[in-house]
Amino acid sequence: MEIRELRFAQRMSGLSGSAIREIFKYVSQPGVISFAGGNPGTFALPYEEVARISSELLLSQGKVLLQYGATEGYFPLRESLAGYIEDTFKARFTSQEILITSGSMQGLDLLCKVLINPGDIVLTESPTFLGALQCLNAYQAQIVPLKGDDEGIDPDYLEEMIKTHQPKMLYTIPTFQNPTGITLSLERRERIAHLAAQYGVVVAEDDPYHSLRYSGEMLPSIKSFDRSNWIVLLGSFSKVISPGLRVGFMAGSENILRQCIICKQCVDVHTANLNQAIVDVYLRQGLLAPHIKSILPGYGARMASMLESLSAIPQIKRCTQPEGGLFIFVFFDEDQDVAPLFQAAIDKGVAFVPGSPFYPEGGHRHSLRLNFSSASLEDIHKGMDILTQCIQKTMS
Amino acid sequence: MEIRELRFAQRMSGLSGSAIREIFKYVSQPGVISFAGGNPGTFALPYEEVARISSELLLSQGKVLLQYGATEGYFPLRESLAGYIEDTFKARFTSQEILITSGSMQGLDLLCKVLINPGDIVLTESPTFLGALQCLNAYQAQIVPLKGDDEGIDPDYLEEMIKTHQPKMLYTIPTFQNPTGITLSLERRERIAHLAAQYGVVVAEDDPYHSLRYSGEMLPSIKSFDRSNWIVLLGSFSKVISPGLRVGFMAGSENILRQCIICKQCVDVHTANLNQAIVDVYLRQGLLAPHIKSILPGYGARMASMLESLSAIPQIKRCTQPEGGLFIFVFFDEDQDVAPLFQAAIDKGVAFVPGSPFYPEGGHRHSLRLNFSSASLEDIHKGMDILTQCIQKTMS
Repeated sequence: MEIRELRFAQRMSGLSGSAIREIFKYVSQPGVISFAGGNPGTFALPYEEVARISSELLLSQGKVLLQYGATEGYFPLRESLAGYIEDTFKARFTSQEILITSGSMQGLDLLCKVLINPGDIVLTESPTFLGALQCLNAYQAQIVPLKGDDEGIDPDYLEEMIKTHQPKMLYTIPTFQNPTGITLSLERRERIAHLAAQYGVVVAEDDPYHSLRYSGEMLPSIKSFDRSNWIVLLGSFSKVISPGLRVGFMAGSENILRQCIICKQCVDVHTANLNQAIVDVYLRQGLLAPHIKSILPGYGARMASMLESLSAIPQIKRCTQPEGGLFIFVFFDEDQDVAPLFQAAIDKGVAFVPGSPFYPEGGHRHSLRLNFSSASLEDIHKGMDILTQCIQKTMS
Repeated sequence: MEIRELRFAQRMSGLSGSAIREIFKYVSQPGVISFAGGNPGTFALPYEEVARISSELLLSQGKVLLQYGATEGYFPLRESLAGYIEDTFKARFTSQEILITSGSMQGLDLLCKVLINPGDIVLTESPTFLGALQCLNAYQAQIVPLKGDDEGIDPDYLEEMIKTHQPKMLYTIPTFQNPTGITLSLERRERIAHLAAQYGVVVAEDDPYHSLRYSGEMLPSIKSFDRSNWIVLLGSFSKVISPGLRVGFMAGSENILRQCIICKQCVDVHTANLNQAIVDVYLRQGLLAPHIKSILPGYGARMASMLESLSAIPQIKRCTQPEGGLFIFVFFDEDQDVAPLFQAAIDKGVAFVPGSPFYPEGGHRHSLRLNFSSASLEDIHKGMDILTQCIQKTMS
């Protein structure tokens, strides 16, 4: 009798697990200073307020919150989100055009599920968010990386790529991008919205860092320039309230959302109600804006400190100069490789993520990503001193 | 200039949205008595206890719970689940073999994602859970329905179907099945475990109703007979604590779970920490067993009342006689159609779900599903009186 071997689906062959998963084993060890993850700083997590709110919510409407909820989301939150999104992203939606997701990652997953056939072409910034690359690979999309500069995606190149590849979707993080920290300029936002409509390309506008601005002016979303409903805005409360609550949203045409809702029904039925209601209280009671205001100086000081340290390291060819977000991206000379630096830094108790995995096309071994939100200011000083020493030893 | 039309992925063509979604519009109207959903009774939702626990958890470890968590799940819960699963399902797992999911629906979704290529064959009971059918359709599985009787799947027929179709997976709800309430007998559990190993078929054993037994003896899971690790146990706290919290688990071989974890990372990153920690407190502090004990009599009385009403209706050919769970399945003569009854009942303010959508092969328009957990005992009396009248008017 022949025993069959377990065979996984074809989609799994493109998924090796996040290249940086191994790094996080180091990070969780005590005493390690992490510039590796994308975690909010501990000081920015409002646990006492959430404790009070969750207790009040459960005592006043626990019978509703503990019951099954609608796949579309908790209705009061969909309502309050309409106002929040207009204020923050300058884009108008009815509550019918808003779907609550279990983090903004799920928004991209659902969008891929309803749109992407194996082999379909998706354009992305390069480098871009690792989770997005994994997600696109899980749907066997063909990823075409876009060129950009310090103002984000180059719209002329984008148009060329659209004409050449007829992509199904563009995935972009326009504000304080992960991993670069770069922000797409106002003019380019408008231009990209027009290109999407002109050529019929869905844009997944992933904007979780939008409110974490430490200098300069807030920009309207790409979606705010959308006249033809090709753009879907993905948002999250992970970076401004708590990632552990897993509450995000997608906002776009009802046509697309209807399909996403059908999929979400047999993915996780709905996002946890209590978690949605907590976010709703933050929005309705005006708690979010002052909370964000209270955490910005701490993040801004951390970014400034890290940028200052970086500017004093001669081996660094250039680094991005973000005005917000969580990340700075660093380049050495093109013939360098950060692998020995990575090992040396780990040995001294400092973790970062090499840049290469963020590039869909690979290469770029002379780059790395630094996160400044997770470590304390003191640890940033200490960690950057160690990193500077390691750079001097390992990079020329 | 030709404007492209938005085209959805091929997988969406098999997904029309749940056939019973429309029904739930009626159900949410005030005054309607619902035998339609699968909601726990309001009396069974322990909101005061969850309020206390969540407040205590957030005040004592809010900085951890509001932060990102591990994709595998909150470690204390994976530990406490190992003991719970052994007690409840008589199957042993290390915490490494347990993945926390956002409800057991997500367990099936992840399993499909890692295993199913379009066209792969999946065996299911017929009728079976609508969400599972939707999920399998989303992965473009070819569903082959299995014959069974009052003891569940017929193992001889199962073996024949395995030989004929070489399926990738068997999806089964062995205990108080949805929609029938039927429980797979002990002998068949053992036999199915052996068939899975003999022919190399993954079994998704979905057992969310296991603890809701109102008479008879608890049975060990199919997994408890598994010697070759082809069986993955899917569980949920939706029916015994709260569906709104969205906490479930999957337990199986590390080989399969590793792939599921990779997928979950780019689906929802992790299940909300606070929700996992609440379930962990229920398990660790021994709160779950007494809570379940306290709700069983209420559910048992509801089921008994409904079965008694059904036995007095001459038009009913037969109905299942469950020993637990949430559902009773009802058959009229084969030439009957419940569509007029459905409309008549809705008009009188009583909702149920016609049986046909639960059958992968369709047909069976002479059947319907009744839920007895959601309505109060008083409403069950009232609703069954109305239903009896409607049956007398519409069915022969």
